[in-house]
Amino acid sequence: MPSAAVIIIGNEILSGKFADENGPYLIRRLRELGVDLGRIVVLPDVIEIIAAEVRAASAAFDHVFTSGGVGPTHDDLTFPAIAAAFDRPLERHPVLARVLEERAKTPPNVAAYRMTEVPAGAELWWDGNVVYPLVVMRNVAIFPGVPELFRMKFEAVAHRFTGVPVVCTRLVTLLGEPEIAGALTEASERWPMVAIGSYPRFETRPHTVIVTMEGRDAPALAACEAWLLERIPTSGSSGST
Amino acid sequence: MPSAAVIIIGNEILSGKFADENGPYLIRRLRELGVDLGRIVVLPDVIEIIAAEVRAASAAFDHVFTSGGVGPTHDDLTFPAIAAAFDRPLERHPVLARVLEERAKTPPNVAAYRMTEVPAGAELWWDGNVVYPLVVMRNVAIFPGVPELFRMKFEAVAHRFTGVPVVCTRLVTLLGEPEIAGALTEASERWPMVAIGSYPRFETRPHTVIVTMEGRDAPALAACEAWLLERIPTSGSSGST
Repeated sequence: MPSAAVIIIGNEILSGKFADENGPYLIRRLRELGVDLGRIVVLPDVIEIIAAEVRAASAAFDHVFTSGGVGPTHDDLTFPAIAAAFDRPLERHPVLARVLEERAKTPPNVAAYRMTEVPAGAELWWDGNVVYPLVVMRNVAIFPGVPELFRMKFEAVAHRFTGVPVVCTRLVTLLGEPEIAGALTEASERWPMVAIGSYPRFETRPHTVIVTMEGRDAPALAACEAWLLERIPTSGSSGST
Repeated sequence: MPSAAVIIIGNEILSGKFADENGPYLIRRLRELGVDLGRIVVLPDVIEIIAAEVRAASAAFDHVFTSGGVGPTHDDLTFPAIAAAFDRPLERHPVLARVLEERAKTPPNVAAYRMTEVPAGAELWWDGNVVYPLVVMRNVAIFPGVPELFRMKFEAVAHRFTGVPVVCTRLVTLLGEPEIAGALTEASERWPMVAIGSYPRFETRPHTVIVTMEGRDAPALAACEAWLLERIPTSGSSGST
């Protein structure tokens, strides 16, 4: 299955000036698409920090999605950082410059041209007949941070990132985690292709524990669920999620 | 000023089964406390991955806060991971074991004792007269992932993590980012102690750009704001945040 990492770039997220909407959006959409999300990182606007994270994530995951830092101002450093990550120069892309010039009512200034200066070797994706293409460097797809634009640009290319969706079932029990831990450990050893999670909930009374079982091997999932249901008494509100 | 990193641990966040509430909570509270949050990472339940991140964050930041993975089940791997991060063995802590035994109605089982097996050398913090102390390994404070417990335990120790709060002002303009980028760059060079951010908003019409100025040097902040207000026409909805 394809794996992915998400890199959210921007001081405004770390300082709480804006809430990150793009991480939660990608969590949901990658799950639906069947892509295994393995890491989310929120970073400040610092070239060296972004570059190190991009380099490591690009090597470790099939796909990397970045959010933010692609505008024309001094705090927009994602293109230079990704160029540094891959030891490539930053170059004005002639196609991006032409799009910018055609769209502008007055001649673009130096700041506007920053948005056209991308890592040498970057590809442009025109999926969805967009006005501005998505810039992609190797396996790193570079998205704007503004949530409306992020979602629009992600949906235009989402068809490229598909795997087999995970199926998840759950049971809810009134037993505490220590009492069910032995059964969960044994089940996770018997069915290693089933990911078993255990989540105590304290916001309701009586306290419950939600046990989730998920994977892409339907027979294994069913066998694991049946085995656990024989060993853990449930409290009624179980079912698929 | 003290710096901090946050490490959110759990497959349930990356797979979208539960939304992370603790990252956003810490963003807000660290801002209020005057601690500079420099990094947030969401990781899966894998010892080696957690250990590598904890080791790097502990070296790079004054404080590290982890969330999740401290229960009694097979997917609770934060204590072993932090022990690995610091090359220390995992040891049953006699005080934690005594608390567990005193609170239990029946003798604790092997799974329950997992919650008492912490990195050798870990400290216990009893702030707020809690029943279960907070486990802290060097500069890494180890919190449970369940949001209610997380908040309760964080507030009990929050007084230990104080700096000087940042002051933030903003202006809102109808000019586009390319038109104000030159002034922002010059201001950021004139007042390097003021962090200037620029955030286009497309969800309203007419489109606006929010410019934020923040820092701990009040005279510099005021001078920077006055200088920018002379150069960027504002649209009325400015003010402190």
